[in-house]
Amino acid sequence: MTGLPAHVDIRDVSLRDGLQIETPIPLSAKLELLAAVAATGVREMEATAFVSPSKVPALADAAELAAELHNFDGIEFSALVASPNGAKRAIAAGLRSIEYVVSAADGHSRSNVGRSSAEATAQIPEIVTIAHDSGAAVEVIVATAWDCPFDGPTPPQRVLDIVTAATDAGVDRLAIADTIGTTTPRRVADLIALVRPRIDGVPLGAHFHNTRGAGLASAYAAVGAGVARLDASVGGLGGCPFAPGASGNIATEDLVYLLRDSGIHVDVDIQAAIAAARVAQQAVGHDLPSSLLRAGDRILG
Amino acid sequence: MTGLPAHVDIRDVSLRDGLQIETPIPLSAKLELLAAVAATGVREMEATAFVSPSKVPALADAAELAAELHNFDGIEFSALVASPNGAKRAIAAGLRSIEYVVSAADGHSRSNVGRSSAEATAQIPEIVTIAHDSGAAVEVIVATAWDCPFDGPTPPQRVLDIVTAATDAGVDRLAIADTIGTTTPRRVADLIALVRPRIDGVPLGAHFHNTRGAGLASAYAAVGAGVARLDASVGGLGGCPFAPGASGNIATEDLVYLLRDSGIHVDVDIQAAIAAARVAQQAVGHDLPSSLLRAGDRILG
Repeated sequence: MTGLPAHVDIRDVSLRDGLQIETPIPLSAKLELLAAVAATGVREMEATAFVSPSKVPALADAAELAAELHNFDGIEFSALVASPNGAKRAIAAGLRSIEYVVSAADGHSRSNVGRSSAEATAQIPEIVTIAHDSGAAVEVIVATAWDCPFDGPTPPQRVLDIVTAATDAGVDRLAIADTIGTTTPRRVADLIALVRPRIDGVPLGAHFHNTRGAGLASAYAAVGAGVARLDASVGGLGGCPFAPGASGNIATEDLVYLLRDSGIHVDVDIQAAIAAARVAQQAVGHDLPSSLLRAGDRILG
Repeated sequence: MTGLPAHVDIRDVSLRDGLQIETPIPLSAKLELLAAVAATGVREMEATAFVSPSKVPALADAAELAAELHNFDGIEFSALVASPNGAKRAIAAGLRSIEYVVSAADGHSRSNVGRSSAEATAQIPEIVTIAHDSGAAVEVIVATAWDCPFDGPTPPQRVLDIVTAATDAGVDRLAIADTIGTTTPRRVADLIALVRPRIDGVPLGAHFHNTRGAGLASAYAAVGAGVARLDASVGGLGGCPFAPGASGNIATEDLVYLLRDSGIHVDVDIQAAIAAARVAQQAVGHDLPSSLLRAGDRILG
């Protein structure tokens, strides 16, 4: 662990990754949650995804939600896409920042988008062109960067191939994602050590799930390895609703606690994040796995 | 983070720290849990505490439990004590390893044992004499090493004073404990960097709770800072039973997962630990916060 960064950017993914496997909630409830998250001071939010409404009914209102985003100042909103068509829909809906997700493992890629990893990688240049022609930014997110639920451990070279294709195509940002919540700090540090020399100055983020308890430890390892952009969701929204208590994304408020008490500055207010987690819990109608939601902050001194 | 140790010793504290704030369970249920934990391959277990039965009714059967320990081969059993009298009772009951807990913060010390931290520290030599005269080993555990629920952050010098008194008195082991689950990786690394030069070759352990989600990250930071002895409980037993889902000790199986996938050897079998966590959940009659209990192991490769 070398020097830690002075500041880490948190992107809140509650509205997309947090809600995508939940029973669909009304747009009004999403806007209430969005307002609560916006009140935390966060600068970036993943608002929705422009994907198949039949596959992800919880995000079928992507265009309607996008039409409301102009009401929230000072936040950069992004939307996830899985194809050139999705990129076009996102931009038509007014998004200025899109995330194109490419699975490094073929098993997950075929299950998720019906294409191999190489086929999905080959579409990066077209998506970059669609975005840049409209003045939008593109991030490529490498999913199943450590493990795939079908194929097991992902060979690092598969991640590096996507990273190289993305930087060659001129993407604006990169991220590596522990899609199924299996990685550990050592594996995080090892992969980042391989990826960083290949990113050619492109900002690198990381995305963790707390499914096996190691999400925050992995996030801290990423920060220690030089990553200063992390995804999180209020309450840890994003766990499987059919396994009560199972952790989803790392909880924004738990991440803020860990970073703050490690001397790292973040834009997110911890009490506002806890309040937003309560709104999220109300919106989905079941308990969320966040630790701070139960324990609260420590006595400061 | 310098080189990681090749091996980490895990001490399972399910029977003591895990059960102490639960509604008392019968001795037969404790022995069933003990057998399940013993089957994990763990080499050390904190079996009970010799403290006031009125203050800790869940452990009032300490002597009865101690009388059964000879049935379990190959495991070093310890018991926690909070006074010279407790040390005498533990040794009379047959324990060969005792832990004397001293709070670094006066607020917690007075609340816990009715004495100041300095008064509790002054009793270390007497407890070492009691133990060593009987051929037993003594560990001094520094409680509230980072924060106190009454006094806030603990000045590191208070921890160092106890460590120095303990090494001067000839203790066999030392540990620092995050009693209320508030510390973070950076604070862990910082305190260990101060403590290690003072321990004079005495083995140093660490004890974390996952109350604010950072328990595993803190444990990994301790390992990275040179600590190769960690406490944990199956299922993460030890949370407050009145706050369902609130995390207690770091879960043995989650810790094993994190260490194994960081290339560190442990004696504990992960599937046996998950099985023991199920026994623990049955014994206490409520859900436990362990992640692996829900998610299981990853696909290995």
